[in-house]
Amino acid sequence: MRKELEKLVAIDREIGLLGHIGALLGWDQETYMPQAAGAERAEQLELVESLVHERFTRPELGELLSALGSTHENPGGDDRLSPDEKAYLRAFRRDYERRTKLPADLVAEIAKQTSLGQQAWAKARQANDFTAFAPHLERIVELMRREASCLSSGGNPYDALLDLYEPGATESSLTKIFSSLKAELGGILASIRSRPPLDAPFLSRECPKERQKAINDWLIGILPYDTERGRLDTVAHPFTTTLGSDDVRITTRYIEKLFVSGIFSTIHEAGHAMYELGIAPPPGFARTRLSEAASMGIHESQSRMWENVIGRSPSFWKRNYARLAELAGSTLEGVGLDLFIKGINKVESSLIRTEADEVTYGLHVILRFELESELISGRLAVRDLPSAWNDKMRSLLGIEPPDDASGCLQDVHWSAGLFGYFPSYALGNLYAAQFWDAMREDIPGLEKRIEEGELGLPLAWLREKIHAPGAAFTPGELIERVTGSALEARHFTDYLRAKYSTIYGF
Amino acid sequence: MRKELEKLVAIDREIGLLGHIGALLGWDQETYMPQAAGAERAEQLELVESLVHERFTRPELGELLSALGSTHENPGGDDRLSPDEKAYLRAFRRDYERRTKLPADLVAEIAKQTSLGQQAWAKARQANDFTAFAPHLERIVELMRREASCLSSGGNPYDALLDLYEPGATESSLTKIFSSLKAELGGILASIRSRPPLDAPFLSRECPKERQKAINDWLIGILPYDTERGRLDTVAHPFTTTLGSDDVRITTRYIEKLFVSGIFSTIHEAGHAMYELGIAPPPGFARTRLSEAASMGIHESQSRMWENVIGRSPSFWKRNYARLAELAGSTLEGVGLDLFIKGINKVESSLIRTEADEVTYGLHVILRFELESELISGRLAVRDLPSAWNDKMRSLLGIEPPDDASGCLQDVHWSAGLFGYFPSYALGNLYAAQFWDAMREDIPGLEKRIEEGELGLPLAWLREKIHAPGAAFTPGELIERVTGSALEARHFTDYLRAKYSTIYGF
Repeated sequence: MRKELEKLVAIDREIGLLGHIGALLGWDQETYMPQAAGAERAEQLELVESLVHERFTRPELGELLSALGSTHENPGGDDRLSPDEKAYLRAFRRDYERRTKLPADLVAEIAKQTSLGQQAWAKARQANDFTAFAPHLERIVELMRREASCLSSGGNPYDALLDLYEPGATESSLTKIFSSLKAELGGILASIRSRPPLDAPFLSRECPKERQKAINDWLIGILPYDTERGRLDTVAHPFTTTLGSDDVRITTRYIEKLFVSGIFSTIHEAGHAMYELGIAPPPGFARTRLSEAASMGIHESQSRMWENVIGRSPSFWKRNYARLAELAGSTLEGVGLDLFIKGINKVESSLIRTEADEVTYGLHVILRFELESELISGRLAVRDLPSAWNDKMRSLLGIEPPDDASGCLQDVHWSAGLFGYFPSYALGNLYAAQFWDAMREDIPGLEKRIEEGELGLPLAWLREKIHAPGAAFTPGELIERVTGSALEARHFTDYLRAKYSTIYGF
Repeated sequence: MRKELEKLVAIDREIGLLGHIGALLGWDQETYMPQAAGAERAEQLELVESLVHERFTRPELGELLSALGSTHENPGGDDRLSPDEKAYLRAFRRDYERRTKLPADLVAEIAKQTSLGQQAWAKARQANDFTAFAPHLERIVELMRREASCLSSGGNPYDALLDLYEPGATESSLTKIFSSLKAELGGILASIRSRPPLDAPFLSRECPKERQKAINDWLIGILPYDTERGRLDTVAHPFTTTLGSDDVRITTRYIEKLFVSGIFSTIHEAGHAMYELGIAPPPGFARTRLSEAASMGIHESQSRMWENVIGRSPSFWKRNYARLAELAGSTLEGVGLDLFIKGINKVESSLIRTEADEVTYGLHVILRFELESELISGRLAVRDLPSAWNDKMRSLLGIEPPDDASGCLQDVHWSAGLFGYFPSYALGNLYAAQFWDAMREDIPGLEKRIEEGELGLPLAWLREKIHAPGAAFTPGELIERVTGSALEARHFTDYLRAKYSTIYGF
């Protein structure tokens, strides 16, 4: 390895260690931190972030990149570098440019306004008062436009924001894929609605937290999630976090009158964690930028594949349902495997994205994609957001929120400045289905083998094809390599049609 | 505040934040960290330590201290500074000199050899093989001598090491106080031995871990330890750690056939935690050097006061025993309050320091003090340690270890380079008893009020007198201020005599 690259990697490793330390501070804050410790914890997190920022903005970095021949136009550097080294430089330069293109005062202003914005959002949602939140959202939208214009000179500002989470995605590419998805999902939803609704009252039966803990502890024992390199804890809002290359922890929550929520939350987060744990950078690049995920959408494909494609399938439960029913005691009394499978796959238009089923979920996401791109472009004014939201809910899902709290105020993302993030949620489903089709071709009798408990088999495939390369490929390159074609919605909609025509009999 | 002092305090605050971040990394390592995460965790801890070291050794610090008139001879700085500011500079300079006087290669060599030393010690103890550990201990003793000679020019090298843990303590001052303590403890032990031994078989009755958890959760609810600023977890070797000025966590362990061990471990650590939480630096000095403890001995006085003086007293248990017996179920069946009190205060010569009672504990410590001072001065060769240990065990405690594993290999301290630390354990008992006498004079009917559950009363006194000043006074200054005289062993031996003459009837 060239001396300049070695120096770059050394700094990057320190950034990586600091990132993991910050992750521990965050994990502890959500799990075990005593109540009064929050004020200093915020300062500790801020200090770690400033140490990361200081390293990213050292003039030395620019010099090292130049010496290696890496430029904005040719991020991978000169031709004396190996393909791994080039892939590394591309990934590094991406984050480096993000960090160095934004002026410090803009970064500070975004941090301040999104912190205020989140507080205002929480109050406004509680009070169902969009007008109290609107001025904050206006400021944040304006700051997002400024951020976008710093990140890309000219072009569609929303594209620059999308690129932060899904490298290469653009408003126009997403519009294309989402419009066919929208039409298909509408069709599937109509077919489901033509059938009698599913009756699964067990879903809301009480299940005490201790019993749910036993269920979920058993569950992570079944999943090929390595608990010598991770652990499961409970929090208010479940997440996965990487505290080290051998330390990726998941969290879940136990809702007493909705015990399946904890189960699928655990499987979902385990999917994220298995991705992070499967990244295997080439020699010399452990714990650098190459140890990171390819994109948020690819990340979400891993969680959704385990949660939905595997975790809500008959193959998975045929083997495991008896034990679940035993652990669930009275909560699943008299509920057979068939009813259980139908219940956990029940489709119903609902107001809240995070509680949506596999079919309607994508429609919730498309709604947000359409609205946020309009907000950023200025085609939609913040004050008109509530009515635009309600119109789209009616046309996409056939229902209308009774208030803004269960409408345009339901998600934290915009108040936190996460414009461009929402599409990842829908892309995850699409990637997952396309990967799944490729996996089924590669592994004969895949469902049967899952039924026999061989969950290590899909994991090994995912590791080799998707996890191991980490950030070495863009999502576009990755899906081409793994499936032989670009991302298409049809894999997902074919999967839904096959699954739900069986469940609903259409 | 002068500009230079402000700058100094700002750097010190960052060092403080980094210290707390390091404490979280350490706490997590002992409590919840997944098994495989240890290798990277060591690197994370090393990075944090290097960030602290970098700040301590910035040339800027020396310039700021000079500008404030602080020198080795006059650490408190010039006369334009307030008493608080002078106290702060004295405390800061102490740590600053420690950090800057040791050459980097010596620090690195000590880190390496003590890391190897601890591994070798663990194996040697397991295998009962002192000769395998001896070459490591020889290297570490040699490094400690070099450290001592860097810290103090000339003088007794052991004094320089003592000063690291107990500012102002010297071999000669400790020899004086420990020799009267040794004689007195010997006398008390002889009186106890003249009486029939106590029979308390409940001590070794089985108590399942879940039941012990319930007992200890109840216990921290009774103690005035604020769990909004702390928490209790279980570990292999209990400790207290400060993760923030409002975040001081304690740990305990549950031994199934020795359930009182967990109880007194919890009270002991809560005593340490209440000290840390009670430190109240003057305005402008929050989270600086002044937020630290006065010394290890003063720290130990707080844990031992709660554990022994309060926690093993009839006043404490009269009110609480019924509930304990209820929670302990069959473990305390048929055991009355009287027998319980006698049992938890049973005195018996034993081989292992950490399991020793209040009377013999000091003798274990004096043994170590005498041996480590001889090792450092060269009066004792490492190869002669086992026989010297066994001789002293016979003369001080009247028993002899059957092997080195339960003799000179029992403690981790020397392998970790903690020469000079042991005396704090005995000093803690002496300080505690002298503080207790002062407290009893200030609070009429103290025992009666503890019996009535007013545990906030002794805590408030300790806070005001001992906790609040933090590191503003040396231990010598502190005990003078609080009790009107220098440290004397008689408070402790009078306390023991009064307590054990009642229990043993001599």
